[in-house]
Amino acid sequence: MKNIILIFTLTFITSFGSVAQVDETAISDSAFIRQIFDQALVNGESYKNLEYLCKVIGNRLSGSQEAVQAVTWGKKTLEKLPLDRVYLQPIEVPYWVRGDVEWAAISEEMDVDFSIKTLGGSVGTDGPMQGDLVEVQSLEDVEKLGEEGIKGKIVFYNRPMDPKPISTFESYGGCVDQRYAGAATAAKYGAIAVLVRSMTLLENDRHAHTGSMGYKEGIRKIPAAAVSTQDANMLHQYLESNGTAKITLNINAHTNENVMSNNVIGEIRGSLYPEKVIVIGGHLDSWDVGQGAHDDGAGIVHSMEVLRILKALNYRPNYTIRVVLFMNEENGNMGGKGYAKKAKQMNENHVVAIESDRGGFSPRGFTIKADSAETVFVQSFKTLLDGYGLHYFEPGYAGVDIGPLNTPENKVNPKLISLGLVPDSQRYFDYHHSETDVFDAVNKRELELGCAAITSMVFLLDKYLR
Amino acid sequence: MKNIILIFTLTFITSFGSVAQVDETAISDSAFIRQIFDQALVNGESYKNLEYLCKVIGNRLSGSQEAVQAVTWGKKTLEKLPLDRVYLQPIEVPYWVRGDVEWAAISEEMDVDFSIKTLGGSVGTDGPMQGDLVEVQSLEDVEKLGEEGIKGKIVFYNRPMDPKPISTFESYGGCVDQRYAGAATAAKYGAIAVLVRSMTLLENDRHAHTGSMGYKEGIRKIPAAAVSTQDANMLHQYLESNGTAKITLNINAHTNENVMSNNVIGEIRGSLYPEKVIVIGGHLDSWDVGQGAHDDGAGIVHSMEVLRILKALNYRPNYTIRVVLFMNEENGNMGGKGYAKKAKQMNENHVVAIESDRGGFSPRGFTIKADSAETVFVQSFKTLLDGYGLHYFEPGYAGVDIGPLNTPENKVNPKLISLGLVPDSQRYFDYHHSETDVFDAVNKRELELGCAAITSMVFLLDKYLR
Repeated sequence: MKNIILIFTLTFITSFGSVAQVDETAISDSAFIRQIFDQALVNGESYKNLEYLCKVIGNRLSGSQEAVQAVTWGKKTLEKLPLDRVYLQPIEVPYWVRGDVEWAAISEEMDVDFSIKTLGGSVGTDGPMQGDLVEVQSLEDVEKLGEEGIKGKIVFYNRPMDPKPISTFESYGGCVDQRYAGAATAAKYGAIAVLVRSMTLLENDRHAHTGSMGYKEGIRKIPAAAVSTQDANMLHQYLESNGTAKITLNINAHTNENVMSNNVIGEIRGSLYPEKVIVIGGHLDSWDVGQGAHDDGAGIVHSMEVLRILKALNYRPNYTIRVVLFMNEENGNMGGKGYAKKAKQMNENHVVAIESDRGGFSPRGFTIKADSAETVFVQSFKTLLDGYGLHYFEPGYAGVDIGPLNTPENKVNPKLISLGLVPDSQRYFDYHHSETDVFDAVNKRELELGCAAITSMVFLLDKYLR
Repeated sequence: MKNIILIFTLTFITSFGSVAQVDETAISDSAFIRQIFDQALVNGESYKNLEYLCKVIGNRLSGSQEAVQAVTWGKKTLEKLPLDRVYLQPIEVPYWVRGDVEWAAISEEMDVDFSIKTLGGSVGTDGPMQGDLVEVQSLEDVEKLGEEGIKGKIVFYNRPMDPKPISTFESYGGCVDQRYAGAATAAKYGAIAVLVRSMTLLENDRHAHTGSMGYKEGIRKIPAAAVSTQDANMLHQYLESNGTAKITLNINAHTNENVMSNNVIGEIRGSLYPEKVIVIGGHLDSWDVGQGAHDDGAGIVHSMEVLRILKALNYRPNYTIRVVLFMNEENGNMGGKGYAKKAKQMNENHVVAIESDRGGFSPRGFTIKADSAETVFVQSFKTLLDGYGLHYFEPGYAGVDIGPLNTPENKVNPKLISLGLVPDSQRYFDYHHSETDVFDAVNKRELELGCAAITSMVFLLDKYLR
């Protein structure tokens, strides 16, 4: 993977569909992108920022004291760059609390407790509860079993993530319905609780992986917890050997009243189009386990570093370049929704939205959510970025936080280009939503390359978008 | 990074330069490659093979008892596949021994010992030696200082690896002259020993990274050791603060008589061209620290898995597909040289040689060492492999072990295509030649994708090369 900067002719289609030749600036574009990468790799601050966020503040679920600290830290860190404007945007968020009891065991063997993590949003058990385990592979299995097979039972969703897709997010997408909708589906038929196999490709992991779940109006709320894949395998074997398994479950999770929190926003004012915004963001909240390093401390420090690098290189943007540290992506997306709503109210014209929420691994490219002309426009940058290992520029989902900017009720600019950073996904679900998502699981250079990838994309869009 | 299998028309230039249309087979090619990846990701044996090699056998320097065990294990494991032929190729190898004393400290502060690893091939100190430290940045610095500045001193090469190149191998290549030639250069001017900053991009690593060094005939052999980057920084600071630093060094490394070892070879006989060989390999030996997981346990299990997958899919190759587990890449390359010499003697026609010796990380593509028509031929497979994250198909260095097949004295086939697997390189030098290169540093999926990448390339070359 030689680091050769190619001198070439850049031909691209602008957002208005015309083809432009920009020979005379191509060399300086490639040289400027090289400077962006040098800044990230030699003078980068993303890694030490991530260390502080992960180790000093720690995990930071919406509503927690750590989330409050993260907001203060985010604001201070952006102010130090300094920027043209740094401010907080008040956001009301849910305040779910895991509680201090989270325990499950096979009742006949009370010393065989196993590794669970209550799913975010779940109710508690109101003291120890007991029930027979019914293992299923899908929501459809529950529908088939019906009340006869489900009533009074604890449903155990045990369909593993498929190892075949190259993108692990595809595997996740094909599995996460069990976690999200498992409780509501099982409760419909009278289940008393659900256990869900952890969403990870590690086949024998001792850590349970938490995540959000939802209830449905009119259906009883029953407790829901993730089981480590190691213990899911054990439960499966136990059921095979013994035919039945009575489970004791004790969880005292609960949801408090909503509290106020904030999105943290910082921006460099555009010189040509100050009223038009290129927004970059990740989410500041995390689950209440581990340190929220890959999910999504990485996206936070990626985003902040874009502004630091542009300033360090004395780049004066045409558009307003804004970073948003979104609050509450994990369990409500109130930050993303609130930001988009406010943008609509203010009639703010967002021309580009970029999200980083797939970890701090070696960047491979971007997903593009845009009309076809804009998609081709973004893809025209591939030649400039290919030498940096960025080869993936394909239509796809861009991100949760920036999603609401694209909804019919919020959309100001029909030509909005939404992009999602695509890092290498192989290790993401090893750590995702578990105790192992810590600072030490992030490689400095891989993180820094992500910063440079986004900054380069911002630079090219800022320079060439009309 | 969606996992979409494209149905397309494959147009490629054969090795004879003609353009062939293979529409009718294109769909089955893409389907077969998908099966290769499924085999690697679902039924893969590379990870458990690597676990055995790393954890049960451990590191395995040429001449060591563990190297003997590795040869036995390699042969047995290949025999189990089973193959048409498995055999050992005797190779005489050097037998360097680190010894049980490896210690350095600032003499004025004897409690401040620091982390060193004697360089492979180094002589010992014959008991504790003392000398003043002279810090330099390069071999050229030593030449400039000359006898006046160097004589009787311990030379401390402290030029760090450059963080700017995207490929860390480029950084390594720009730095490793200090390790390899540092002792001989310093000895020319009367230095009594050398210390060399470890070859890693970790700026504050407590582990020293060993590696090979060489002496020059007629120049006195002086001891040489790598210093951890953490302690190299400390020594630099100490010199800045105190002007001088007297160092005590005690190393009892030594070189025994050469011993006999083996390359381990296994093959599936070609159905059309049994006398023509596609060879795939990595190296079975490792340095005597850590477990030799990325370097090069990964290459060993990658290579073995190619044959397992082809057999599992009942693929009957046109060419003979041969795997070589090369001995002694690290300190002599006697396995690579011996294999090529023997191939020449037997007039064996090697049409393709593929090496994996850059770690078990997510594969990104291949370096190609071939004539231009053959290079274009290999690049024509890019479209089929792009959906698997394989995007890099560029001319470049292919590997140490297969290198001798390409030398004028050994080359049988002037059209030989040499390829090197290119995994993501960002983390490689975190582990390389240090205590941290262990099984646990390898991700299962990343390893498995490497197996599938090589197997797919072998399949396409076997099918289309004429």
